[in-house]
Amino acid sequence: MRCKSYVENRIRNLKGLMIKNHIDAVIIEKPENVKYFSNFNPVINSSHVYILMRPDEDPILLVHSLRADHAREESAIDKISLYGKWGDNVPVAMDPIDAIKCLMGEADGTLGLELDYMNVIQYKEIQEKLKPKKIESVSHMLNMMKIVKDEYEISCIRKSAELVDMGVKTTIDYLTQGYSEAEASTEGQYAMRKLWHQKYRDSEVCGYGTSEGGMIDSLHVWCLSENHISYGCDAPKHYYPKEGDLTLPMAWAKTDGYHAENERTIIIGGASEFKNHAYDSMLHAREAVFSILKPGILFKELYFAAAKVYSDAGFENILPGRIGHGCGCSAHEFPSLAPNNEIPLAPGMVITIEPGLMDKKWGGVRHSDTVLITEDGYERLTKLDNGRIVIHPTHQA
Amino acid sequence: MRCKSYVENRIRNLKGLMIKNHIDAVIIEKPENVKYFSNFNPVINSSHVYILMRPDEDPILLVHSLRADHAREESAIDKISLYGKWGDNVPVAMDPIDAIKCLMGEADGTLGLELDYMNVIQYKEIQEKLKPKKIESVSHMLNMMKIVKDEYEISCIRKSAELVDMGVKTTIDYLTQGYSEAEASTEGQYAMRKLWHQKYRDSEVCGYGTSEGGMIDSLHVWCLSENHISYGCDAPKHYYPKEGDLTLPMAWAKTDGYHAENERTIIIGGASEFKNHAYDSMLHAREAVFSILKPGILFKELYFAAAKVYSDAGFENILPGRIGHGCGCSAHEFPSLAPNNEIPLAPGMVITIEPGLMDKKWGGVRHSDTVLITEDGYERLTKLDNGRIVIHPTHQA
Repeated sequence: MRCKSYVENRIRNLKGLMIKNHIDAVIIEKPENVKYFSNFNPVINSSHVYILMRPDEDPILLVHSLRADHAREESAIDKISLYGKWGDNVPVAMDPIDAIKCLMGEADGTLGLELDYMNVIQYKEIQEKLKPKKIESVSHMLNMMKIVKDEYEISCIRKSAELVDMGVKTTIDYLTQGYSEAEASTEGQYAMRKLWHQKYRDSEVCGYGTSEGGMIDSLHVWCLSENHISYGCDAPKHYYPKEGDLTLPMAWAKTDGYHAENERTIIIGGASEFKNHAYDSMLHAREAVFSILKPGILFKELYFAAAKVYSDAGFENILPGRIGHGCGCSAHEFPSLAPNNEIPLAPGMVITIEPGLMDKKWGGVRHSDTVLITEDGYERLTKLDNGRIVIHPTHQA
Repeated sequence: MRCKSYVENRIRNLKGLMIKNHIDAVIIEKPENVKYFSNFNPVINSSHVYILMRPDEDPILLVHSLRADHAREESAIDKISLYGKWGDNVPVAMDPIDAIKCLMGEADGTLGLELDYMNVIQYKEIQEKLKPKKIESVSHMLNMMKIVKDEYEISCIRKSAELVDMGVKTTIDYLTQGYSEAEASTEGQYAMRKLWHQKYRDSEVCGYGTSEGGMIDSLHVWCLSENHISYGCDAPKHYYPKEGDLTLPMAWAKTDGYHAENERTIIIGGASEFKNHAYDSMLHAREAVFSILKPGILFKELYFAAAKVYSDAGFENILPGRIGHGCGCSAHEFPSLAPNNEIPLAPGMVITIEPGLMDKKWGGVRHSDTVLITEDGYERLTKLDNGRIVIHPTHQA
């Protein structure tokens, strides 16, 4: 499936919103949004990449000269301009903001920026050099655009969903064989990469690295046990889950820029009555959410459906802050399945369903599935069993 | 080796610099710097972590309530405060800037911020609520502090160096067996993780994930061939290097927050006379740099030593922008081995030495080693052979 026509459609939609909201020019630089409107991932986002957009002109992708060939190869935007020196490439200017000024002229109207992303040094330089009459944040507008996915995006998320299923399944297999959290995660990740080699050879599995962090892969498995679960996230340790433990393998994948996640809480051997009660409550909370999951329902209604089950089961003091989130260009995308979210579900939205409980005294329980909202309900993109999972590990591997 | 006393020393040094530079308070939030002054890595830096520092007070680590237990477990800073709601934790305020105001009071003097990192929304909120008389960027001051590593940092970088050696060595082995770039990279990464399990079980190998990107592992191998090398970076593809190609496996590791890298250009079978000339020039450029590598030499002298070899060999049109960089809390840390860098080398600095050539017409050549500057010269932390490497792959695996 060629991405270009989908990207062109997104650009058309953004231009329409700019006109409607009286925004004369937009500069986009957050990597997830650059990818959305251009399909270009610089892999190391060391020198910023910009998309310059006016409602009545073709968009421009502005990259450092070092990224010239890479951008020409991958960008769905045809007009590419360069800043900075590298080899025999010809840049518009050495400094990116100087280049933006050359390409857009002074911004004599309202300029839209991602103010929750742009750093202060750049912002001041834009104010000084472009002298816009008014600056407005466009982050919310872009977030709202991205909630409903197009066919191309859904096709990428489907691949990621298959990869995370493999990641969690394999990690559970190795935990069953007595491997540690860290060792089982390694095998889960390795299996995901093998499946990538086998089925999705033409897909790119990397994130938006920075100069600070370098390149980053985008197929991961992590695993936490017992009170460690209540950290919300952490690196897996060389801990061997033991009889009575709760253990939570989590796989996250990004394929061609699009995320999916799968998380499953496992009971090791026989757990206490209390843990079993928490686990069962989690399964009931999920049933409550899935039973009403369809277009028209408000996000907050999903939250309250889960919260009611947890409250009735005696967990009112440790209700989660949210029970899922959008999933797409970001691992945790706008919006949250939270009590204050009045947005109605619509076909084409992709979200995670993961009502969970966490408590440092005993750990936590959470399954997470990546789900597509359809015309009359939903489709679970992660297909792995999501009921009660109990394993009996063999002696430490 | 316990990290805490080293972190305390770094805090003392920063306080000294604050007094010298008349800075009354500093707010640190860049994850690499937070880790440096606290040893805390939140693993997903979704809600910002802050260090609040005044010269005459104990520093405060301010985290979201969700990270309370994690921070208490790992932080070398004892005073931990919370913002935001999670479970039964008691926060100072819901909003982080409100919490900062409660903890520091109005900033009645000069406030130091990382202006090249902080986003505009936060900056404006700080201006409004803390009303500092003056704001100054402290990024350069922090960068300069971090150039010379302490013993603890060097011990972490040594582990990363051993891991990247394993990553590149294994990737070369699999390329020799006829694997594709992507498949060989997978095996390299898998071998690094196995070595982690075997020797460095208590070390954490993860980066600073964000809400957008999720968690990120920090043991990677990438591989590029031919004109793809001139992209500077990209994800490995399912390409099988063939007779006459140049191929570049790159391994990057971060152990307990500290990076090392190893990169080796490989000649597949017999390369053209031109490519061999470029390769030999790269080896000579490296000799020129290593022959003068010791305290007192300026960074720019290292650059010019390599540049002279390349110019004499006929590559004056494609001289690299820099021939290495600092390496520590970041993969590409301040400063660059570049023509304008007047800083002298000193014992304890850790840098990469990687004079390279890149050209989209034929690809590129580059070896990268991670090197510690010692009292009277240097120690190469990555020990893998760094001379001429030629392999003859068997038929496609």
